[in-house]
Amino acid sequence: MPLVGVVMGSKSDEVLMQPALDTLRDLGIEYEVSVISAHRTPEKAREYGQNARKKGLEVIIAGAGGAAHLPGVIASWTTIPVIGVPLARGELKGVDALLSMAQMPSGVPVACVGIDGAKNAAILAAAILGLKHEKIREAYGKYRRELSSS
Amino acid sequence: MPLVGVVMGSKSDEVLMQPALDTLRDLGIEYEVSVISAHRTPEKAREYGQNARKKGLEVIIAGAGGAAHLPGVIASWTTIPVIGVPLARGELKGVDALLSMAQMPSGVPVACVGIDGAKNAAILAAAILGLKHEKIREAYGKYRRELSSS
Amino acid sequence: MPLVGVVMGSKSDEVLMQPALDTLRDLGIEYEVSVISAHRTPEKAREYGQNARKKGLEVIIAGAGGAAHLPGVIASWTTIPVIGVPLARGELKGVDALLSMAQMPSGVPVACVGIDGAKNAAILAAAILGLKHEKIREAYGKYRRELSSS
Amino acid sequence: MPLVGVVMGSKSDEVLMQPALDTLRDLGIEYEVSVISAHRTPEKAREYGQNARKKGLEVIIAGAGGAAHLPGVIASWTTIPVIGVPLARGELKGVDALLSMAQMPSGVPVACVGIDGAKNAAILAAAILGLKHEKIREAYGKYRRELSSS
Amino acid sequence: MPLVGVVMGSKSDEVLMQPALDTLRDLGIEYEVSVISAHRTPEKAREYGQNARKKGLEVIIAGAGGAAHLPGVIASWTTIPVIGVPLARGELKGVDALLSMAQMPSGVPVACVGIDGAKNAAILAAAILGLKHEKIREAYGKYRRELSSS
Amino acid sequence: MPLVGVVMGSKSDEVLMQPALDTLRDLGIEYEVSVISAHRTPEKAREYGQNARKKGLEVIIAGAGGAAHLPGVIASWTTIPVIGVPLARGELKGVDALLSMAQMPSGVPVACVGIDGAKNAAILAAAILGLKHEKIREAYGKYRRELSSS
Amino acid sequence: MPLVGVVMGSKSDEVLMQPALDTLRDLGIEYEVSVISAHRTPEKAREYGQNARKKGLEVIIAGAGGAAHLPGVIASWTTIPVIGVPLARGELKGVDALLSMAQMPSGVPVACVGIDGAKNAAILAAAILGLKHEKIREAYGKYRRELSSS
Amino acid sequence: MPLVGVVMGSKSDEVLMQPALDTLRDLGIEYEVSVISAHRTPEKAREYGQNARKKGLEVIIAGAGGAAHLPGVIASWTTIPVIGVPLARGELKGVDALLSMAQMPSGVPVACVGIDGAKNAAILAAAILGLKHEKIREAYGKYRRELSSS
Repeated sequence: MPLVGVVMGSKSDEVLMQPALDTLRDLGIEYEVSVISAHRTPEKAREYGQNARKKGLEVIIAGAGGAAHLPGVIASWTTIPVIGVPLARGELKGVDALLSMAQMPSGVPVACVGIDGAKNAAILAAAILGLKHEKIREAYGKYRRELSSS
Repeated sequence: MPLVGVVMGSKSDEVLMQPALDTLRDLGIEYEVSVISAHRTPEKAREYGQNARKKGLEVIIAGAGGAAHLPGVIASWTTIPVIGVPLARGELKGVDALLSMAQMPSGVPVACVGIDGAKNAAILAAAILGLKHEKIREAYGKYRRELSSS
Repeated sequence: MPLVGVVMGSKSDEVLMQPALDTLRDLGIEYEVSVISAHRTPEKAREYGQNARKKGLEVIIAGAGGAAHLPGVIASWTTIPVIGVPLARGELKGVDALLSMAQMPSGVPVACVGIDGAKNAAILAAAILGLKHEKIREAYGKYRRELSSS
Repeated sequence: MPLVGVVMGSKSDEVLMQPALDTLRDLGIEYEVSVISAHRTPEKAREYGQNARKKGLEVIIAGAGGAAHLPGVIASWTTIPVIGVPLARGELKGVDALLSMAQMPSGVPVACVGIDGAKNAAILAAAILGLKHEKIREAYGKYRRELSSS
Repeated sequence: MPLVGVVMGSKSDEVLMQPALDTLRDLGIEYEVSVISAHRTPEKAREYGQNARKKGLEVIIAGAGGAAHLPGVIASWTTIPVIGVPLARGELKGVDALLSMAQMPSGVPVACVGIDGAKNAAILAAAILGLKHEKIREAYGKYRRELSSS
Repeated sequence: MPLVGVVMGSKSDEVLMQPALDTLRDLGIEYEVSVISAHRTPEKAREYGQNARKKGLEVIIAGAGGAAHLPGVIASWTTIPVIGVPLARGELKGVDALLSMAQMPSGVPVACVGIDGAKNAAILAAAILGLKHEKIREAYGKYRRELSSS
Repeated sequence: MPLVGVVMGSKSDEVLMQPALDTLRDLGIEYEVSVISAHRTPEKAREYGQNARKKGLEVIIAGAGGAAHLPGVIASWTTIPVIGVPLARGELKGVDALLSMAQMPSGVPVACVGIDGAKNAAILAAAILGLKHEKIREAYGKYRRELSSS
Repeated sequence: MPLVGVVMGSKSDEVLMQPALDTLRDLGIEYEVSVISAHRTPEKAREYGQNARKKGLEVIIAGAGGAAHLPGVIASWTTIPVIGVPLARGELKGVDALLSMAQMPSGVPVACVGIDGAKNAAILAAAILGLKHEKIREAYGKYRRELSSS
């Protein structure tokens, strides 16, 4: 059963989000992938958020470019942590997306990583899940030890 | 029956949105005012958008600061035109809000005015409504003629 | 008779404005296209604005890059709604154009969409025209329903 | 035993970080507070990071302004999740701190919230801790339900 | 007969433009002052530009904030040099005005000075006029010699 | 005898400054070209500025990228008008150069044009020289009439 | 005999540069203070740079706001290290000054510190002088040890 | 024995740092090169900083992109001068790195050069080392004289 839901605003974001999927798999974390537009398919975003916890998801990673409301909109419908990945789509190169994710209003935060930071989003998910899941904690600990000895 | 729905993300935005209300009144345009947070009260935002046309609203003016998803979220639930007013809340002085409103994804636009541009949002609403409502067209025409002779 | 006037600052903007034309056509909205420079041909801009309503235009979509005064200058000569499309020309990638369109002075607004947002400008025009023209309202409603079921 | 370690770069950051403390307390989450400069007291930062998990901390909230390396430096010494709060100190109003936290290199993420977003950092901590601690999950759920009915 | 026309977008710009007037007077350069909005009173802007040379004006100094189209619009109607002064009005503190003046399209330049640089606009006017008018050249030379010995 | 001195910070700026040379030639304005670095060859910059008026130069056009002190440094050594062309060299794409030229201190202005605006610098020079030289005024007037009828 | 020359662009910069003077004194480093404008008094800047080494200066600290050419201009006339302090003067709050100092051309660097970073400039000077002067090395070492134990 | 330690955050930064190595060699300055990540290998960064002076290093040049904490982190562990080179990695093109290096907190400065300014970092190192090492002073003096006569 997937612990992480990876969501992206459009099919074309897939290549930028792939590092998240690769890293989750490397760390042995089950995930599912969905394409949901906060604006074109708001009903789908609502259902996704409202069902996330029931389905067993514990972390959502949402990547989007431009106005990039997706992680914030999903966060408005759920209480599990949402990690936002601002994608460098369009001429503003992700600055718009970064601000739109980081500057969420009081009460409904998004955990923002760097522009095109899909890999780091997966690692942050591992750090979060590792608090509860020993196997993930160990896998992430091993990953960091390997990094530091490289 | 109100033609314009003025929405703001928080009670504290009222002072920045007041010029919109004053200008709508001066131009003889009926309006209603609501406080809705796209993230804290997403269900309310959904209902507002879904019922807007049925209630007779023809234009929505939505003001918000920071991540400022409000106009985009409402636009996702309706097909009447949504005018976004980026408010200069917080340290980024409305730059975050401006980008978050202007850079909407393909398919669901927001008509963005300037930072703290509540008054211009009302005038833009008048220009739009004036296409259909002769009385508003005349009031707006008179307003512009007075401007240009001042 | 065209309802929408699409204007661009230079012949070379055509490729960036093409999505507006395609979308208007897809939605069954008649349009005309003009190349007018606010600065090189100010008289033409004045005539265009002053005659717009008389000719039956109900919405103007103006795209420009750099200083991008075109939508504002046309708006100064007409009272029908003007939608501005900031184009990513030159090294500032449309940031200059976005600010120049959004930050219009009190009294003469431009409805700004995102950088290179020609398609969204056409959709916004449809939302505006749909208030008055039932056929456009239906076409736009159908477009949005198809988006949301995709 | 505290679950959350709140760290700030300087004593003078206290007033900006206070909302995190208030919110943690309101949600019934135990925390401890430390003043550590990543650059003036690097040894202290190292020890703090290396001992965090052993001491029972599950989330670290680190606020800093300017270059704002603090959350990143602490994250380099630990594998528990680190939430960064960019503080609006100095003339760049937190933009420097936001970029310095969000743009962390591959392998060692920081979960960034908005500028001066201490309160949201605490709420994000609650969402993370709520995955494992039922009481916190319930307190956070209740908080969000109250928000949405306000 | 005035050689310099000083124009500003709104009565409230007067205090920011005053240093231009003081400096012109100190350098013994005759000037006239007008309040013209490029957007609210486009006809006035057109007439001003078209009559400038006939009236004997040799340089125009135009100050404006926000979208700040004024110097560009006047430049579109005249061939005498136009100096633009971006004014720090509103939340973007003149960055919008600076870009809108500097980034003029090919063929119709504005000579841009710094934000709130009214004084330097007057000095630049003196340097330009000094090419033709010996008395102004001498006054400006004296001014610079005094600066350099201070 | 050249009326315009075109200066650039490095040999590699030549391609970006070429449009200035082409336009000056098209308008029948004599010019000379020099490569001078404000920092690597400060003595050369000083001599250039100090001799400019004596040599008969009436306008200097200085293009530079990055810190782009060149026009300001030359302006510090002369009282003839200096037009600055911010060049889009390096990663900041001319934003650094634009600010460094526009934001000159009180007393010593630079007439700044847009990023990579070499052509407009030449046209501005024509407008300035046209005040005194009838032939240039006529050539520039003809140029603008042709633009406006295109 | 002073080892450090502290230079500022204008008398009014004194309050922002005072922390440099205080810190130099605290660390027992002799200094002299001058007010020199790169543009208003270029001859003074040239002499200052050309005589710096002869006078026994080993480091120059130059603070300036706006275009902030001062450290770069002085660096062009000397080969001793120049530390630039971008000052937050005017509406751009030191961003212009920071870029103008950091982005120096190849061959003539400025060692840039943070906006209004006068104190850090003095500490950097101490680190540099400490390589050669044992007493300064010791004073700086003691300063850092005290910092780290606070 | 190397006087300069050149450090970079990742093997892939090598091409951007190569100009520093070339310039140091041209000026006859011995150096050593290390790859150290402030976050992935914090222990290595600590050791590097703590041993730098003992090993005989007198200047450290540290290049990094993104959050770019490397020079600041090394500076926290040593008292010899650290020159930071912000590298244009990722979508923000070095702006993030520049701010992260320049805006260091009070007490622990980094001497920042321009984006991708590896060559200037080496020249700045030469200016610093030249205060103590006559041969380097002469080599740098010769370099600057050649520059100025080119």
